[in-house]
Amino acid sequence: MNSTQNFDGWVKSVQVAMEDALSAFLPQADIAPERLHQAMRYATLDGGKRVRPLLVFAAGALFDANVLALARAAAAVEMIHAYSLVHDDMPCMDDDVLRRGKPTVHVQYDEATALLAGDALQSQAFIVLSGQDNAPDRTLAMVRLLADASGAAGMCGGQAIDLASVGISLSLQQLEQMHRLKTGALLRASVMLGALCGKFPSETEEAALDAYADAVGLAFQVVDDILDTTADSSTLGKTAGKDAADNKPTYVSILGLEQSMALAEQLRQNAHSALAPFGDRAYFLRELADLVVRREK
Amino acid sequence: MNSTQNFDGWVKSVQVAMEDALSAFLPQADIAPERLHQAMRYATLDGGKRVRPLLVFAAGALFDANVLALARAAAAVEMIHAYSLVHDDMPCMDDDVLRRGKPTVHVQYDEATALLAGDALQSQAFIVLSGQDNAPDRTLAMVRLLADASGAAGMCGGQAIDLASVGISLSLQQLEQMHRLKTGALLRASVMLGALCGKFPSETEEAALDAYADAVGLAFQVVDDILDTTADSSTLGKTAGKDAADNKPTYVSILGLEQSMALAEQLRQNAHSALAPFGDRAYFLRELADLVVRREK
Repeated sequence: MNSTQNFDGWVKSVQVAMEDALSAFLPQADIAPERLHQAMRYATLDGGKRVRPLLVFAAGALFDANVLALARAAAAVEMIHAYSLVHDDMPCMDDDVLRRGKPTVHVQYDEATALLAGDALQSQAFIVLSGQDNAPDRTLAMVRLLADASGAAGMCGGQAIDLASVGISLSLQQLEQMHRLKTGALLRASVMLGALCGKFPSETEEAALDAYADAVGLAFQVVDDILDTTADSSTLGKTAGKDAADNKPTYVSILGLEQSMALAEQLRQNAHSALAPFGDRAYFLRELADLVVRREK
Repeated sequence: MNSTQNFDGWVKSVQVAMEDALSAFLPQADIAPERLHQAMRYATLDGGKRVRPLLVFAAGALFDANVLALARAAAAVEMIHAYSLVHDDMPCMDDDVLRRGKPTVHVQYDEATALLAGDALQSQAFIVLSGQDNAPDRTLAMVRLLADASGAAGMCGGQAIDLASVGISLSLQQLEQMHRLKTGALLRASVMLGALCGKFPSETEEAALDAYADAVGLAFQVVDDILDTTADSSTLGKTAGKDAADNKPTYVSILGLEQSMALAEQLRQNAHSALAPFGDRAYFLRELADLVVRREK
């Protein structure tokens, strides 16, 4: 088995394990209130590349992390991500009808159910994360990390900046700052959560992980913007060309397609460099950076 | 000073302390993204009876709780309450324009900002609660408690049942179950959070607090339904008569006004009985039960 097969097999095994973990950690569909539970499951299960869980597991592998702790941390961060997509797709936000190749939650159910399912998914993330049978101080640090990454100084703050920037022109620096919060904060949290499932990383290790996560987070968004221009809706599983249609600033609108692709490659290399202190042990994190940049959807 | 003055003074002092604590624990209004932060503050500050914080502090007084820990716990539970009101008032839910005598958040700002401010307030509650400088195992138990009370098996679940019950007739038992989740879960959590800011309550004490909180929680809702019928909008600070107009089942619609008032009084007495094991030390909790039942808005 060569190393690519090894990595592909690992990705699939994490994705399968996540599906099981998420299913177990979500409220069951046949328990009242059924419609709410079904919408929460619809929003979370059977879809997505599971990039955040993969980052959790890959970082955990560096720190001899407990697998059950990793599953909880990864499920929690994926629930936060899923809730943000549900709310982001609602008519008062991006008003999107297609997500992961399926109707969005408010289309499949209704707006009120989508609102509540998103709210309950955020709570569920903290239920699952705080339910760790780990050292309480470690678990509490993880709760703080996830809450910070999710809230006004993280994902929600980035979405607010995104809202405010429709139709106005941002500098590259402002665009980066928006994405550092909107998607970067949760991606960085994923890496740190994985590490914390093992032992507390040293300051040097934390700085290296942070530099890696920052580069991967920005690369993820640059590639998203490229794919929004170059791919079609059926490949993406969501509405392509939507950012341009919505008059949102993107890397492609600011830098052009060619320079955006060069930037993505540069960020991929930055991610690799950041991992140098870990040597070969960072194999999965390194391959994940490549996956993020080279994906086609 | 007689005991009523003593209680009234205590209520005011908690309300003033809460306003300060909430202001300190919310993101500042002049820091970017300003509009999000302003909406979060608008939704939370300068309003409300602060029933949940009062329950936190009153229960804390029974268990020699640390005052700083109580302030964090009370602020966290009030942020969850505030976020639920913001989302509940949105057009896809109750579509209400008036709250605490002011325009609701989506009216004052816009729907997208209301959605995000609610989301960020939920995260902020867990940031504030997990930031306790207390014993980690205690703090973690509090995080679990608040997350459980907020999510699908608590407040969000109750709201989902509420949504599903518009226009259909509920039995008294079904109505109670809905309110036990929708408002009761967070009121019960308030009492338990206050206790956990001191020492872990014994099983007997926990059962007594739970019985108290259950009675107060239901009484709160019965009185809400009574006031929705008998008070006017300017007294309530929110739209009166809305439940009837929305064809929602209420205690008054099921039991009639007179029996609803008798039930509220019965629940007040149940709350008092539950506190018997604590003797005189439960003075504030006892007075709070009276306040909940005898309030006029």
